[in-house]
Amino acid sequence: MLIHGKPYRSIWRDMKDGKIKIIDQRKLPHLLEIVTLNNLEQSVIAIRDMYVRGAPLIGVTAAFGFAISMQENSSDQAIDETYSCLMSSRPTAVNLEWACRIFAEKLKPLPKDSRVGAAWQLAMEMVDDDVATNTRIGKFGVEIIRDIAEKKTDGSPVRILTHCNAGWLATVDRGTATAPMYEAIEQGIEIEVWVDETRPRNQGAALTTWELHHNNIPNTLIVDNAGGHLMQHGQVDVVIVGSDRTTATGDVCNKIGTYLKALAAADTNVPFYAALPVSTIDFSIDDGLQIPIEERSSNEVLQMSGMTDQGKVETINLTGSGILASNPAFDVTPARLVTGLITEHGIIEAKQSHLDELRLKLGLAE
Amino acid sequence: MLIHGKPYRSIWRDMKDGKIKIIDQRKLPHLLEIVTLNNLEQSVIAIRDMYVRGAPLIGVTAAFGFAISMQENSSDQAIDETYSCLMSSRPTAVNLEWACRIFAEKLKPLPKDSRVGAAWQLAMEMVDDDVATNTRIGKFGVEIIRDIAEKKTDGSPVRILTHCNAGWLATVDRGTATAPMYEAIEQGIEIEVWVDETRPRNQGAALTTWELHHNNIPNTLIVDNAGGHLMQHGQVDVVIVGSDRTTATGDVCNKIGTYLKALAAADTNVPFYAALPVSTIDFSIDDGLQIPIEERSSNEVLQMSGMTDQGKVETINLTGSGILASNPAFDVTPARLVTGLITEHGIIEAKQSHLDELRLKLGLAE
Repeated sequence: MLIHGKPYRSIWRDMKDGKIKIIDQRKLPHLLEIVTLNNLEQSVIAIRDMYVRGAPLIGVTAAFGFAISMQENSSDQAIDETYSCLMSSRPTAVNLEWACRIFAEKLKPLPKDSRVGAAWQLAMEMVDDDVATNTRIGKFGVEIIRDIAEKKTDGSPVRILTHCNAGWLATVDRGTATAPMYEAIEQGIEIEVWVDETRPRNQGAALTTWELHHNNIPNTLIVDNAGGHLMQHGQVDVVIVGSDRTTATGDVCNKIGTYLKALAAADTNVPFYAALPVSTIDFSIDDGLQIPIEERSSNEVLQMSGMTDQGKVETINLTGSGILASNPAFDVTPARLVTGLITEHGIIEAKQSHLDELRLKLGLAE
Repeated sequence: MLIHGKPYRSIWRDMKDGKIKIIDQRKLPHLLEIVTLNNLEQSVIAIRDMYVRGAPLIGVTAAFGFAISMQENSSDQAIDETYSCLMSSRPTAVNLEWACRIFAEKLKPLPKDSRVGAAWQLAMEMVDDDVATNTRIGKFGVEIIRDIAEKKTDGSPVRILTHCNAGWLATVDRGTATAPMYEAIEQGIEIEVWVDETRPRNQGAALTTWELHHNNIPNTLIVDNAGGHLMQHGQVDVVIVGSDRTTATGDVCNKIGTYLKALAAADTNVPFYAALPVSTIDFSIDDGLQIPIEERSSNEVLQMSGMTDQGKVETINLTGSGILASNPAFDVTPARLVTGLITEHGIIEAKQSHLDELRLKLGLAE
């Protein structure tokens, strides 16, 4: 998508030096800083320290990390070590495991000297797949938006609330939750987006507003507390969020606070959708509350970073000294609160029977 | 309550100069700055610009503002002007109207030369009433905490979640939502408090953690997004919040985001209480969604203030430039989500019939 009118992806192979480049998303929206991934360690750090974030982008970054690692050493032992290293970088995102497993499984049977080429090819395929997947999510999801637009009698824009950043920055391009929004704009459907700030890391305030703004989608930032009130007053037509992991029963694990918005949506009859690639569905888990939730540093809660009016990036403390904080990073929205799942294979109900059907249709492992 | 071991109230008449002093709560927790209210204008500014906040403290500050104003001019016209001036300072808090109405009604019939003395006396009575009210809210509310403690088999502390600051800083002393907590500690019941950050103004992070910390109540700060997750995982035994205005039907208007916590509490069978003086009940309103909600400056959402590690108070921008924000300050929790109302006259169900009964018992106007 666009940054200052110029098309970008969130991760790409630079044709000049052949190296993988990412945007250091921790610096956004204040600085657009491009970082090179020179080795496995830098790839792990990029994931662990959240230079990149978002389940699909984490998966693709791990894929490139694998390819970069194979370039240095493509032995069986290196495959195992690369797998462990990458797997330890973030605990919740199922795409990480998915990408790492594919690489280990596909590379191991190959002769050592063809592993590097195969790894690069696999990674590039994952990039293409991600873009194709999100484009399809957009094509299916836009129909929800169109339906709402067509039922409006006052010609007002369709007002979509989103939480965190499931935007193009969380994927390679187009995003998951944002894909239907970009599609809507391209098809001439008027929309307006309510962007949840998404404390503690402020991905909504820092990333989603920034990417929507650069792509000319009208958006308004709100604090995480405000969505319920807006829904009560008829100011939200639909909620669309992403998902870090969805269970076989349709429970949606996503950024902390998603559950609260889903509750409000259910309470006010606002449809609530999660947009997700099938790769984020974990068919091995039936109960979302069993998903291990990453507890991140309390400093993310106690402090905040931003730019002063003088243009200096500064970190401030929000509390007095000696205060404790807890920082769970994700929560689980039970399937009963989810209107539907927007996948690259269509929109399905968040029900075990529908997910079973999808799994069988696609021949996916349980 | 205590600050650095020394007892304070949030507003008091200084015996040395006879003037009214407040704590500039905008500077907390980083600076403890005492401000003098020298005239009506400064009283209005103190309310409008949120040097003081919280429905009960706003009411008492308005009361002192009235007394200070009468000292300068106690004519009928001055009474009317003081009334209008104070009433315009904050739109949502019902205590403001309540205090102003009492002053206008009680002062007008008096001869001009006894109005100053009467105004001071009225204000001091309101102070005493507030402290007595909160003490009684604490005595009633602690029974809820004791019941939970007694049912615990593992001897773990009672875990209370609170939103915003309905603490002693929001009243003259002891607070509303915090009164049962202070009472519990004084009675030797072990508690732990989850404190919602409460964006955009961070009253939880800045004020509630600070006041609980100074009064030796174990507390942990969480972002506003986290409470639902904690409730899903059995980490919250009870929610206690304050209320800026409660309707005749038991709908609770409180700081934005309260509704979301009430939804999560209902969804996870966690009892949800609002602690409030009867003066905050607005018997003239049946439907909470009819309460006008104050829309505050978008800068509160787009920026945040805090202290750098170097000890400098700094304001940072959280978004890139050109981003819009919306900032509704309160929301309404429908009565059906409220387990009970903890008042100075006992705990009642959030139902019209129970509120009617209370109104009749107390001889309050409809």
